[in-house]
Amino acid sequence: MLSALANCRLFVKAEPLQLTGSFKIRGALNKVLSIDESARRAGIVAFSAGNHGQGIAAAARAVNCPAVIVMPNTAPRIKVENCRWWGAEVLTYDPQTEDRVEVAQRVSQHRGMTVVPPFDDYDIMAGQGTCGLEIVEQLNELGVTPDAVVINCSGGGLAAGVSEAMKDAFPDVEILIAEVLGYEKVARSLITGIPQSNPFVPKTVLDGIAGPTAGAKTVEVLRRHQAKGLGVADEEGLAGVSAAFRMLKLVVEPGGAAALGAVLAGKADVAGKNVVVIASGGNVDPAVFSRALELY
Amino acid sequence: MLSALANCRLFVKAEPLQLTGSFKIRGALNKVLSIDESARRAGIVAFSAGNHGQGIAAAARAVNCPAVIVMPNTAPRIKVENCRWWGAEVLTYDPQTEDRVEVAQRVSQHRGMTVVPPFDDYDIMAGQGTCGLEIVEQLNELGVTPDAVVINCSGGGLAAGVSEAMKDAFPDVEILIAEVLGYEKVARSLITGIPQSNPFVPKTVLDGIAGPTAGAKTVEVLRRHQAKGLGVADEEGLAGVSAAFRMLKLVVEPGGAAALGAVLAGKADVAGKNVVVIASGGNVDPAVFSRALELY
Repeated sequence: MLSALANCRLFVKAEPLQLTGSFKIRGALNKVLSIDESARRAGIVAFSAGNHGQGIAAAARAVNCPAVIVMPNTAPRIKVENCRWWGAEVLTYDPQTEDRVEVAQRVSQHRGMTVVPPFDDYDIMAGQGTCGLEIVEQLNELGVTPDAVVINCSGGGLAAGVSEAMKDAFPDVEILIAEVLGYEKVARSLITGIPQSNPFVPKTVLDGIAGPTAGAKTVEVLRRHQAKGLGVADEEGLAGVSAAFRMLKLVVEPGGAAALGAVLAGKADVAGKNVVVIASGGNVDPAVFSRALELY
Repeated sequence: MLSALANCRLFVKAEPLQLTGSFKIRGALNKVLSIDESARRAGIVAFSAGNHGQGIAAAARAVNCPAVIVMPNTAPRIKVENCRWWGAEVLTYDPQTEDRVEVAQRVSQHRGMTVVPPFDDYDIMAGQGTCGLEIVEQLNELGVTPDAVVINCSGGGLAAGVSEAMKDAFPDVEILIAEVLGYEKVARSLITGIPQSNPFVPKTVLDGIAGPTAGAKTVEVLRRHQAKGLGVADEEGLAGVSAAFRMLKLVVEPGGAAALGAVLAGKADVAGKNVVVIASGGNVDPAVFSRALELY
């Protein structure tokens, strides 16, 4: 049904069904398991628009170490509450005036905690890449060779990890990344070869992919795989949320539905192709979700 | 997270993820595949509050036979539209004044089509029972012995099929069925031993489990397994919808979330037990879904 609407053979990877409701648990667990025992006892600190924080909080709980999550005061309430539920301490900051990296480093210095970056780290990227390994396995089971994969992209950790895994198995697969329209920092980085930032954090419902900076390591990987960028408007993300509600029975957050929304809006040349879309997360405030259902 | 809220170890079977958005495709496919070639060419007719209709429509399309779905004029729009999308003809009737079985039989006589009953049929029950076989397999993989299974119940096809499969593997598992509060026709049938009807179709958001009659064959199976009934209020079903949205990232319709809602409302003695709940379907109008999210 969704394939007919998208005018291609569509495969959706359902990351909202992961523990903590997004792919972020993958990288977080890989990272927490890679730091040594004594550092783990002191604890970890992470900065995150939300889903990475939850992933870190759940991973920290799994290995029984303290965790502090630094979050913008604009983060959806559900993401804050969920971090606390996993036992983490949440520290908020003002994204208009404060730098989240500095806030996290301050906590690190005062408490001896290890800073776990959200994306520009090979352990994190490798963890997110397990999503790509699973996609490869699942496509092989179906005997399908993908023509393209569309990946929601903020700092680029998921996009880099998944493209590494998928290019290894399918060298001709096209890598497309979905970013906030007008704030395509990674797409600009791919062109210039230098990691770009957005001048400010945009007001958008696609909050999960609205982080301010691209990673140096992630951009390097994505450039090597000749990734191309797609800019996604709020209403396209919300249309993706609504389509997932109606046809997949999956709860997807707007930023997590950007790739799906981009394909449904005809932003990529997918006609008749085998296209993989990653629905990357499902942590969305009820009011935003209802708005998506009313509008589309 | 949901287990903590339910005060037991909770396992949710995610039937909204089935093709057509509910478990009904299981029985429909088994039934359509069991009728002979020439009857299949003439086509099939089914009466249904919605999900069975979609299952039949999709199954008919799979084997390339015509299908007519008889639906109440109160059925959610999404269910009507989806039947048409699968290529079936939809015929509506007034549930306050007309009998759906008679409407379907009229179509059958005029067009030579085979009537496919929604639940009181061993092929249908066996098909729905594959949901139970999967639950058994999945619990065995986890090494878990269930203490109880809670199943949404309208005519009893899913409850009968699942209980047959689960009792075979786990003889001590308790079978609980979730019905519309005040309209517990199957629970009454289990006590009296005679299939009971409701005096009228209640106005309820739990439309998926609000069918008017219990089956003779389904009641016989459920009696043999000593099933017990739970009555679920609208608001409890909606709370189940909201919990599935927040914690499972699954879209579940109110009637499909009745069993989950009943457990969360403390209607069954589940403390510390291993409890399986079937989320049976996810075809819900956006307005009803939004209402659940706003309220709970």
